[in-house]
Amino acid sequence: MRGLRRRRRSYEKLQKNQHRQRNGTLSAMSNSNLTAKPWEHAKTSGSEADPLAIRFVESLSYDRRLYRHDIRGSIAHARMLKQVGLIAKADLNAIEHGLAEIMGEIDQQGDAWTGWKIELEDVHMCLEAALIAKIGDPGRKLHTGRSRNDQVALDLKLWIADAAEQLRGKFKALFLALIALAKRDGNIVMPSYTHLQRAQPIVAGAEIMAWLTAFDRARHRLDALLHINRNNPLGSGAIAGSALPLDRDVTAFTLDLGEPSPSSIDATASRDVAIDLAYALSMTAMWLSRWAEQWIIYLSSEFGFLTIGEAYTTGSSMMPQKRNPDMLELIRGRCGNAYGHLVGLLTMCKGITIGYNRDLQEDKRQLFAAYDMVCDSLDMAARIVATAKFQEDRIASTLDRGHLDATALAEYLVTRGVPFRTAHQIVGKLVRQAGDKPLSSLDLQAFQTACQEAGQPAACDQTVYDWLSASNVVRRYQSRGNAGVTGFQEQLAAWEQRFAAAPQARP
Amino acid sequence: MRGLRRRRRSYEKLQKNQHRQRNGTLSAMSNSNLTAKPWEHAKTSGSEADPLAIRFVESLSYDRRLYRHDIRGSIAHARMLKQVGLIAKADLNAIEHGLAEIMGEIDQQGDAWTGWKIELEDVHMCLEAALIAKIGDPGRKLHTGRSRNDQVALDLKLWIADAAEQLRGKFKALFLALIALAKRDGNIVMPSYTHLQRAQPIVAGAEIMAWLTAFDRARHRLDALLHINRNNPLGSGAIAGSALPLDRDVTAFTLDLGEPSPSSIDATASRDVAIDLAYALSMTAMWLSRWAEQWIIYLSSEFGFLTIGEAYTTGSSMMPQKRNPDMLELIRGRCGNAYGHLVGLLTMCKGITIGYNRDLQEDKRQLFAAYDMVCDSLDMAARIVATAKFQEDRIASTLDRGHLDATALAEYLVTRGVPFRTAHQIVGKLVRQAGDKPLSSLDLQAFQTACQEAGQPAACDQTVYDWLSASNVVRRYQSRGNAGVTGFQEQLAAWEQRFAAAPQARP
Amino acid sequence: MRGLRRRRRSYEKLQKNQHRQRNGTLSAMSNSNLTAKPWEHAKTSGSEADPLAIRFVESLSYDRRLYRHDIRGSIAHARMLKQVGLIAKADLNAIEHGLAEIMGEIDQQGDAWTGWKIELEDVHMCLEAALIAKIGDPGRKLHTGRSRNDQVALDLKLWIADAAEQLRGKFKALFLALIALAKRDGNIVMPSYTHLQRAQPIVAGAEIMAWLTAFDRARHRLDALLHINRNNPLGSGAIAGSALPLDRDVTAFTLDLGEPSPSSIDATASRDVAIDLAYALSMTAMWLSRWAEQWIIYLSSEFGFLTIGEAYTTGSSMMPQKRNPDMLELIRGRCGNAYGHLVGLLTMCKGITIGYNRDLQEDKRQLFAAYDMVCDSLDMAARIVATAKFQEDRIASTLDRGHLDATALAEYLVTRGVPFRTAHQIVGKLVRQAGDKPLSSLDLQAFQTACQEAGQPAACDQTVYDWLSASNVVRRYQSRGNAGVTGFQEQLAAWEQRFAAAPQARP
Amino acid sequence: MRGLRRRRRSYEKLQKNQHRQRNGTLSAMSNSNLTAKPWEHAKTSGSEADPLAIRFVESLSYDRRLYRHDIRGSIAHARMLKQVGLIAKADLNAIEHGLAEIMGEIDQQGDAWTGWKIELEDVHMCLEAALIAKIGDPGRKLHTGRSRNDQVALDLKLWIADAAEQLRGKFKALFLALIALAKRDGNIVMPSYTHLQRAQPIVAGAEIMAWLTAFDRARHRLDALLHINRNNPLGSGAIAGSALPLDRDVTAFTLDLGEPSPSSIDATASRDVAIDLAYALSMTAMWLSRWAEQWIIYLSSEFGFLTIGEAYTTGSSMMPQKRNPDMLELIRGRCGNAYGHLVGLLTMCKGITIGYNRDLQEDKRQLFAAYDMVCDSLDMAARIVATAKFQEDRIASTLDRGHLDATALAEYLVTRGVPFRTAHQIVGKLVRQAGDKPLSSLDLQAFQTACQEAGQPAACDQTVYDWLSASNVVRRYQSRGNAGVTGFQEQLAAWEQRFAAAPQARP
Repeated sequence: MRGLRRRRRSYEKLQKNQHRQRNGTLSAMSNSNLTAKPWEHAKTSGSEADPLAIRFVESLSYDRRLYRHDIRGSIAHARMLKQVGLIAKADLNAIEHGLAEIMGEIDQQGDAWTGWKIELEDVHMCLEAALIAKIGDPGRKLHTGRSRNDQVALDLKLWIADAAEQLRGKFKALFLALIALAKRDGNIVMPSYTHLQRAQPIVAGAEIMAWLTAFDRARHRLDALLHINRNNPLGSGAIAGSALPLDRDVTAFTLDLGEPSPSSIDATASRDVAIDLAYALSMTAMWLSRWAEQWIIYLSSEFGFLTIGEAYTTGSSMMPQKRNPDMLELIRGRCGNAYGHLVGLLTMCKGITIGYNRDLQEDKRQLFAAYDMVCDSLDMAARIVATAKFQEDRIASTLDRGHLDATALAEYLVTRGVPFRTAHQIVGKLVRQAGDKPLSSLDLQAFQTACQEAGQPAACDQTVYDWLSASNVVRRYQSRGNAGVTGFQEQLAAWEQRFAAAPQARP
Repeated sequence: MRGLRRRRRSYEKLQKNQHRQRNGTLSAMSNSNLTAKPWEHAKTSGSEADPLAIRFVESLSYDRRLYRHDIRGSIAHARMLKQVGLIAKADLNAIEHGLAEIMGEIDQQGDAWTGWKIELEDVHMCLEAALIAKIGDPGRKLHTGRSRNDQVALDLKLWIADAAEQLRGKFKALFLALIALAKRDGNIVMPSYTHLQRAQPIVAGAEIMAWLTAFDRARHRLDALLHINRNNPLGSGAIAGSALPLDRDVTAFTLDLGEPSPSSIDATASRDVAIDLAYALSMTAMWLSRWAEQWIIYLSSEFGFLTIGEAYTTGSSMMPQKRNPDMLELIRGRCGNAYGHLVGLLTMCKGITIGYNRDLQEDKRQLFAAYDMVCDSLDMAARIVATAKFQEDRIASTLDRGHLDATALAEYLVTRGVPFRTAHQIVGKLVRQAGDKPLSSLDLQAFQTACQEAGQPAACDQTVYDWLSASNVVRRYQSRGNAGVTGFQEQLAAWEQRFAAAPQARP
Repeated sequence: MRGLRRRRRSYEKLQKNQHRQRNGTLSAMSNSNLTAKPWEHAKTSGSEADPLAIRFVESLSYDRRLYRHDIRGSIAHARMLKQVGLIAKADLNAIEHGLAEIMGEIDQQGDAWTGWKIELEDVHMCLEAALIAKIGDPGRKLHTGRSRNDQVALDLKLWIADAAEQLRGKFKALFLALIALAKRDGNIVMPSYTHLQRAQPIVAGAEIMAWLTAFDRARHRLDALLHINRNNPLGSGAIAGSALPLDRDVTAFTLDLGEPSPSSIDATASRDVAIDLAYALSMTAMWLSRWAEQWIIYLSSEFGFLTIGEAYTTGSSMMPQKRNPDMLELIRGRCGNAYGHLVGLLTMCKGITIGYNRDLQEDKRQLFAAYDMVCDSLDMAARIVATAKFQEDRIASTLDRGHLDATALAEYLVTRGVPFRTAHQIVGKLVRQAGDKPLSSLDLQAFQTACQEAGQPAACDQTVYDWLSASNVVRRYQSRGNAGVTGFQEQLAAWEQRFAAAPQARP
Repeated sequence: MRGLRRRRRSYEKLQKNQHRQRNGTLSAMSNSNLTAKPWEHAKTSGSEADPLAIRFVESLSYDRRLYRHDIRGSIAHARMLKQVGLIAKADLNAIEHGLAEIMGEIDQQGDAWTGWKIELEDVHMCLEAALIAKIGDPGRKLHTGRSRNDQVALDLKLWIADAAEQLRGKFKALFLALIALAKRDGNIVMPSYTHLQRAQPIVAGAEIMAWLTAFDRARHRLDALLHINRNNPLGSGAIAGSALPLDRDVTAFTLDLGEPSPSSIDATASRDVAIDLAYALSMTAMWLSRWAEQWIIYLSSEFGFLTIGEAYTTGSSMMPQKRNPDMLELIRGRCGNAYGHLVGLLTMCKGITIGYNRDLQEDKRQLFAAYDMVCDSLDMAARIVATAKFQEDRIASTLDRGHLDATALAEYLVTRGVPFRTAHQIVGKLVRQAGDKPLSSLDLQAFQTACQEAGQPAACDQTVYDWLSASNVVRRYQSRGNAGVTGFQEQLAAWEQRFAAAPQARP
């Protein structure tokens, strides 16, 4: 994990360099001798690079983030080349040493590393050029049987595997925070809402379990996408593979990937893995937006069901009394960013021909932005949850509003032999009769009359009161997964057991 | 399958009824006695239904399509109610008979069935009202412990399982058509393209294998989404479950679903399964758009690589000479529809509170439209493929353009000990030297001079010519999954084996 | 307007025919003699139409809706042909009579009109074929110098002009309903919210004015898009115009469009007008979703600020006590449909070559669906507004919560010479001091002490109480456009004046 | 313009600071004394800022870009405050001097300016805090009657006006490059395509005019959106306006904006102006993607219609012979980014309550990214166009393929009295007869026989040959806006005249 964090840090440092180059030194650059790409013997005479073109086409500003994955892939590739006899043992040694040195330099220097040269376009060429500069001919052999087309497809897959691991950690932290909240406040009886209208009584913990369930499904998509996209693109070359005796099973094994990709053309032309992750992130963001909206409403003074830590609210520059749940609003709003990146990727791939096209390069810009955003939102959600407190008194004070026990009353009548539809009508009538008062305020006579009028004279006796009031109802739910006492306890136990082996939340 | 097709037919017939009601009979309807919903004893006095409201809120026009799934779910529910003692054996018998009769009626009469009543809002209420009308009190017991909220969540899951099965069949038909094309034309040597520029030589079959691979990944998403979303929502009630002793494992087993959904709140508030399918359809549509674009370009007179059946082209109302590949263009364009429906569903779920909200009703409108569109596109793609012919002569006539063998030449030099980067530069120079002529037109002297100048005097001898020309190169590829002769044959064999047991394409 | 409604009705009737054809008669059709397109002398021997292809490529099921626009365009075209001498007076007479008859038939018979033949693909060909069948050779002259490519571009523009007019009427109805509500309930003092936290006091009418302002901007986009897209595409032919002496200014004038489109290529390849309308509809839907969400929250029992007509709520199949604001939820959710259609259109146009491509045909499917949806939502919004009542007592009962007057207190201090930032801090302190009680409950001493501590000893005297309490504050706002008494009255007056000449709302 | 460029530069420099803070110094920061917001007298005891929260909520990393607009707005506000007597002349002088100094500092130091403090959240607070630090109490008076809510709404409008101006310049540069290309190569006769199939002959210049027309419409949307959104939000306060005697007409006039916004609630809750610009950018990107796709196809070796400067192509790391049009592919692919940002903004606004919500803060992140991307693409497009050359010989060599003159032949027959539909059929037959040869290779007998068989014996004589061949046809088009010689010349003249007064292209 530390690795990724470090990588991310240096990526971000690098961006600033790029920004500087973009603005400050570009005109100078056009006059200087640009670093030639490793394969370029000599420029076509008379042709001059356009600095705008260099900036326009580069991906270095964001794909530097992949340098460790790129080096990992290169080492696997070199080992395979050695194994099949395409390079010598000494070549491999030189390449491994050289790349290790380079990785060390970048780990240390980040974006200040002098090997980052925007005119080399991308992380792959910067690393290869640096290697050649460092070790000479063995470096020139590294790209044997390889193209940037399969190289970047590989890097992306390696990065996504790491990203999924990171996300799993963040989900877990959120899960643990929700579980802790449920353990402390979960037995508070509160209304549930459908259509934002009071529905049936539940315990607060059951709603927390609902968020856990939904986020867990979002997490499951990570596994699914890794499974669908796990084959090894390396060895697909530019599009057609190679006439050299590459052994793609070796690199697949070394890199802990699945089978070699069956079609070299598909392997270099596809970005499904990136879109699948962007989709998984969008679904995560969607559920975050629903949770945030729910809690924003609970935090309104009209509901007042909840408080959260002051650190996660902000004031107003004009209105002295305000504490606003800005973090929750940002989590909600940034759902749009995630959707936008997904649409960006889908659009990018619409209607392009097969074989690598440069359009595909934009995949990382979109994906990295979506990933960073959702990571931050998950982190923030966990923090907010950790400071949240359900306001039992406030909630309790309005529990007898909205006839939350109406459905339970109908179910009581069912247990007394009344068909449900008839019971529904009887209760509908009693609700109108009760008006603003709770159903339990009606006397037995009222219940019995209503039953009688519906042709169910024997349906109701004194036991009806055991089914009324929210606190009775939440103890009566029996169906598995219910939102009352038993359902909540069962779900909570399952969640606790799941994390029993690994109880440490990563903040 | 026939079942679904029949269901679809009747769904569509029903739509027209709805349209008629929408326009023709609505004003009349407002004066007539509307059918009361099963639970409504009496209207609140003074309150009148607004015909626009009835039309605005109904989903019957599109959810009728679910009638078989709804009935299947109701029967499973009734059996469970009987099993746990909430209804009697006689009740169950009456319900089963009644629903069977109703299903028969609808199978026969489709949208002319008199039970479709727009003022009942949706398929669930129409079926329940018809059942009550038919069998009386036992019908009034069917909804015991059930809400439309869990009922529709169940119907959707059952429908999606069927839809996935249908899609699998359509994918298979497309696969078989592609395989047949590959078997007939697959060995034709042709250029591949990256950036729509000539890249390396391949065989036509290898490109076909690429489409197969990509579509197969699209198909795999169906399995993944069914796996993630397979638990049983029935028994979740309106939001909190039920105080009655429902046994959700029984219905799960009967309906061939997974475990009961762990949270009744999540089960009724989620539409992940619909969005997951819309996403899988979008990815399918994306690949269809890429394939269509590729073939549209191949069908241009400038490329001329391909012909397709005249039935899949149309003429022009003004230009007498035209044959246009309209079907392919529509497949490409309808990718937009799929994306649009996905965005529609994602937007629908953004920021809504938990618990069922009526917004969710729109899920089916979007999903059904996306599904129908992609089904048609898959069908059409299979038809077009079945009539396609690669134009060998035309392709061959330009094979020596674009130095398709340049990479192979570099790889030849690698086998002679030249570092790849150096080889790349040598070849770059030779390519410039050859100009518009093929590399094989250069004499040995030219190759040797170029090598010598790069400090590789011994790199080249007469054997170089065995690595030049497209037809040599496609036989030289060795890496697994390559786009030449061996790679194609291996892939084709794997595909043929996969369908060996079940070779009949469903058209 | 009646015309359009009629057209829409028959369009919808026609859809069902298409559905029937799609399912029922297609197999039969493949055996029968299909109607030949007007230009097809004889089928290429051996070529057979594929029924799936016919269904796949047709747009008749939705573009029939354009028949009046198509006929209007044809008559304008024919008159021009006569004027420049390409057809004779007698030809023109025959064409005009023939088309008038056809329009009459379709007005009457709608989708039962026998001229609708799916194998003719679209409305254009059906009308032309029917005309030729009716009047012979003059009918064969109608398409002189015209292609379906410019014809459909024209029909779309004519339809959009009508659609914009319809939308303006629906906006007006909504505006009038909002104005009426504002007149009745507008002076009720209520809290405003930022971040869904209580902010400053306003009058209810001011919030209504905000909706009016936002919707009015949505309405303005209609004018802007008509202005940008108003030139006349007719006469652009298939792509290159015509070698015949067409006079495009004549048709432009007849059809009340702008200048002939400057480029025949652009005119036939563009769908900007459709996307511009889809965007305007999306922005309308976005504002409808915000308004709906706001009112859904106001309708919760916790807020209770509002009631709406019972006809615009529905019950629950399980919970007997519920009244849910389903119509508002659907308005909110259908925002997704509008966004989806916009994305569909944008995707459709991404990266397609210039010149007409068949992809473009999907424009109408998307646009009509978005239009119908937003029309219905606007209608429904107007109805709901017409039944809404702000609940003054309920609102008033909590007005002293949330320190709504804190900002006004700071502004009072400003009038007494305290820099605003200092005033903000003083009030912040007083708010903390007041706690759950209103600021007006503090005694003068408290105010003065707080000022003194901030180095502003003379800032506060008895007059401070005139600036406290919501009802005082709403009368104190002075800035134009404010949300208090004066701002509301000024805005209301402006809105009333705007509709003074045409006060009749169209429901 | 220089101003904006400078501002952008410093914005980008600032981003790197933010990145550094994000990663490096955040943990340190949590221990240090954070700068208090100007309004915060003292922290609530016990409450500690969470560094993640600070980073999560800040917009400084991207809204610094607005510093000049923010200062411009502040000065206008201060002058108004002075004019209505809320601050003294000396206060105004101090504020103006202070802000001028600050602007000078930032102009110079960019992101190194010490006033940028992430814990102050945004550009507004940084500038105000720096001003107070510099001038004391007069600085504390600046925010009188103002909130960040109306302040940021104002800044955004001012920025968008500048951005529109920039975009207009970039459009103009592209227009001039296209015009220059049209002047040089415009008369080359070439095929046009519909459905990517050869349609009618045109001159190359006509296609260039089509791109001009489409991009010009994209440009027009800028005017429309400025018109719709030009009223002045300043003076709307946090949501309700102000109890102080602000004169909003004064600031409107000073800032060259329209009327004060009519509703303070709408003014602070809306982001329509940002979405409108994102939409205009999306439509620009859509047309760029179509143009890029067209040219990518023209650059294929199969078409070979075009060459572009080598600086705008790149090589392959594996394939030595390649020159790929990467810049065009990136322009095409980045259309996805623009669409994505639009969807992001639309999603952000879906279903949020009225009044400012923090979600809205994301508007700038999305909008700035879309704007920068489209600016770069427009710049790059102009460069590429400036180096493009149509390949006349190559184009000419295939002009007699595809029966480009078929439509002209039909129109010839129309001039001879044949109804168009009949003419269409006659030509269809002749096309089949000619097969792969041009129509002009048929002898007169063939034409006359075909006419006779269609009952038009006198329709054809020797003059028919004057209507055949592409070069004849392009001179025969007569309709306004045609894609032949006259249409092109007329359009070109209009474009040249438009820029006659200002002929200097900005590169």
